[in-house]
Amino acid sequence: MKYPNILMMTDFGPDNSSVCTMKGVCSNICPDLITTDITHSITPFNTWQASAQLMFVVPYWPKGTIFVCVVDPGVGTERKACVAKLKDGNYIVTPDNGTLTHVYYEIGIEEIREIDETVNRLPSTRDTSIFHGRDLFAYCAGKLAANIITFEEVGPAYPVEEVVLHDTFYDPLIKENHVEGNIITVFKHFGNVFTNISYKNFKKAGFNEGDYVNVRITYKDEIIFNEKVLFHKSFGYAELNQPIIFSGSMLDICLALNQGSFAEKYGISAGKDWKVVFTK
Amino acid sequence: MKYPNILMMTDFGPDNSSVCTMKGVCSNICPDLITTDITHSITPFNTWQASAQLMFVVPYWPKGTIFVCVVDPGVGTERKACVAKLKDGNYIVTPDNGTLTHVYYEIGIEEIREIDETVNRLPSTRDTSIFHGRDLFAYCAGKLAANIITFEEVGPAYPVEEVVLHDTFYDPLIKENHVEGNIITVFKHFGNVFTNISYKNFKKAGFNEGDYVNVRITYKDEIIFNEKVLFHKSFGYAELNQPIIFSGSMLDICLALNQGSFAEKYGISAGKDWKVVFTK
Amino acid sequence: MKYPNILMMTDFGPDNSSVCTMKGVCSNICPDLITTDITHSITPFNTWQASAQLMFVVPYWPKGTIFVCVVDPGVGTERKACVAKLKDGNYIVTPDNGTLTHVYYEIGIEEIREIDETVNRLPSTRDTSIFHGRDLFAYCAGKLAANIITFEEVGPAYPVEEVVLHDTFYDPLIKENHVEGNIITVFKHFGNVFTNISYKNFKKAGFNEGDYVNVRITYKDEIIFNEKVLFHKSFGYAELNQPIIFSGSMLDICLALNQGSFAEKYGISAGKDWKVVFTK
Repeated sequence: MKYPNILMMTDFGPDNSSVCTMKGVCSNICPDLITTDITHSITPFNTWQASAQLMFVVPYWPKGTIFVCVVDPGVGTERKACVAKLKDGNYIVTPDNGTLTHVYYEIGIEEIREIDETVNRLPSTRDTSIFHGRDLFAYCAGKLAANIITFEEVGPAYPVEEVVLHDTFYDPLIKENHVEGNIITVFKHFGNVFTNISYKNFKKAGFNEGDYVNVRITYKDEIIFNEKVLFHKSFGYAELNQPIIFSGSMLDICLALNQGSFAEKYGISAGKDWKVVFTK
Repeated sequence: MKYPNILMMTDFGPDNSSVCTMKGVCSNICPDLITTDITHSITPFNTWQASAQLMFVVPYWPKGTIFVCVVDPGVGTERKACVAKLKDGNYIVTPDNGTLTHVYYEIGIEEIREIDETVNRLPSTRDTSIFHGRDLFAYCAGKLAANIITFEEVGPAYPVEEVVLHDTFYDPLIKENHVEGNIITVFKHFGNVFTNISYKNFKKAGFNEGDYVNVRITYKDEIIFNEKVLFHKSFGYAELNQPIIFSGSMLDICLALNQGSFAEKYGISAGKDWKVVFTK
Repeated sequence: MKYPNILMMTDFGPDNSSVCTMKGVCSNICPDLITTDITHSITPFNTWQASAQLMFVVPYWPKGTIFVCVVDPGVGTERKACVAKLKDGNYIVTPDNGTLTHVYYEIGIEEIREIDETVNRLPSTRDTSIFHGRDLFAYCAGKLAANIITFEEVGPAYPVEEVVLHDTFYDPLIKENHVEGNIITVFKHFGNVFTNISYKNFKKAGFNEGDYVNVRITYKDEIIFNEKVLFHKSFGYAELNQPIIFSGSMLDICLALNQGSFAEKYGISAGKDWKVVFTK
């Protein structure tokens, strides 16, 4: 492969040709560019979810891959359009509106530049301001992937400390037989619930596969879930539709039902107000 | 890239392998062919919607791209299967059932040919007549993309005037401080509403970004929406869930809610009976 | 194309980046590998449906194609992870949990090997057991596609007779003017119903295009549908929303409504208890 892959994530949904016009813009820049979908079903305008999904996928692609992430409620207003160069060598092309939160904390941003619209915007689109996915982000990503511009030519650098970040969570509390953390995201499709507690710390606290663990989930001060749950390697160790604690795909502690939706059954969401305590 | 990209749009939905069999047919013709999805979530049998979505995407791909559009309620009956060569150098492979309406008016068709089933149909599929997407359209597109047949070898040409077209709209009425037109399509996902009034004409009539404009939408003679709405560059200039008039991605005047669905909130659809009047 | 295409089918849904991490794993093994989606909207955990959808798509791809099928309710438990080499020269990488049923009967499995996790599992994923799609199946498929391992190096062979198969159906009964069979699958999107009766046998029994045929569908002993239905080439020969019998895309006899959902209207599902009788 001569050029890095361009990966695309949006909240544009599956029922229209918007994403395909973005790919066409790349193809027009250089017909050998390859574009691949991440997902286009991010909950509309939910930059937190986009940030979390980026974090799941970035580490699995080769260095130099270009990720285009367009969840852009502020399109055409004053928010910055940027390209971030990550410390792992990947690039993210995105509105600077919170979508960089997870990679900022977990991978690190080496340098960030604001896209210079005077040179890196699709000509002939000056009279519309609502589809920067096509006119700005795909166009700039395509030029970068095809080596028509260098990273420096994206536009002026600005301080990494100015990146727009979502509020994040307190570090989890790890004691013997007692761990506290937050629910940081929920996978809509299967209803799995992700915490910010690492498998390593969970084991260090004394929990082992096969243990039944007390789990208390609270929203603000309300108790939402309070049961003894099996901790094991995978879903299939629980009975059908019974809960299970396991080490998730990012090596963080997760909760699920075996072949059911934990999030839906118990009405669980993610955020600072969603806390979870595990005790023996 | 040695061969033009083959782009695919259908109403086959996301839950089955139908589209992938079409790609396999192309791969069998020539393993170096590249296929890309437009969308497969066109409302079933809605050839008007397919026509509109084609118009959004065709202009953004390189000359020579081959678009396969299969929304085909009449599959296996007498409707023609055709390849249209557009005036911009692109090709559309489709049942001739209305899907060419928008490109006919806005890009122009240079020549149109009926697919000759005796040579351009996947052999071994004579005993089924319900999956021309695979057996006829993908197969013919693959041969055309791989230079196995020329455009002339698709089959016999027929007069462009015979292309099946949907009823279209009256030209919009443009006067000083007064513009009338039709709602020509609605994007299901975000609920944005597209008119047939160009940004250029809207400005010429005297409306400027920042103006509050009277908008009256009628269905037949019933008033569906009648409010003063801000005209500006993008969604974010309106308050959350408030309406906004803006220049859309095709440089036509559109209506939306900021982070809400205009079409759903007000029950708006598209068509000849859906009129919109803008006045100062 | 230097390498065989890797095709992916899962029940992971469209709203997350899981499938894209699988593609990244392949890209990391060899950036020239090409991955293509089959569908990711298999009904969660439904290995029968995955098996049927595989059967629809496998025959249309070039020999040597690698199909990755991950519908894996038993992930991380004792079920085998395997690669099956089919008699048509294609490969299927999948948990051995029933997804091979249709290809076993209709194409045949030449040889089957259990994936050796000690060499063909993504290093650094030892501490999670719930995403074998990424850590095992995509990784092994990528190595196989890139010629880093031979089929023999996947892991130890085991007897083809040990493949996990779903219960299948009795052979259909074919007499003059009388045919009995089972409903073997239902396409959710359009609501078409597929039987295990071949077009060839249906014709041999004396039914011809244009005939009105008595159709009786039963679930256990309950009659679900009992009407005279037109047998013809395609949907469009029936009136709108009226039923039609036709030769489906796999040359088996199917039932549908013209532009409606037969399965939904009459509440039809698939399986051993769903029988269908056609008589003159």
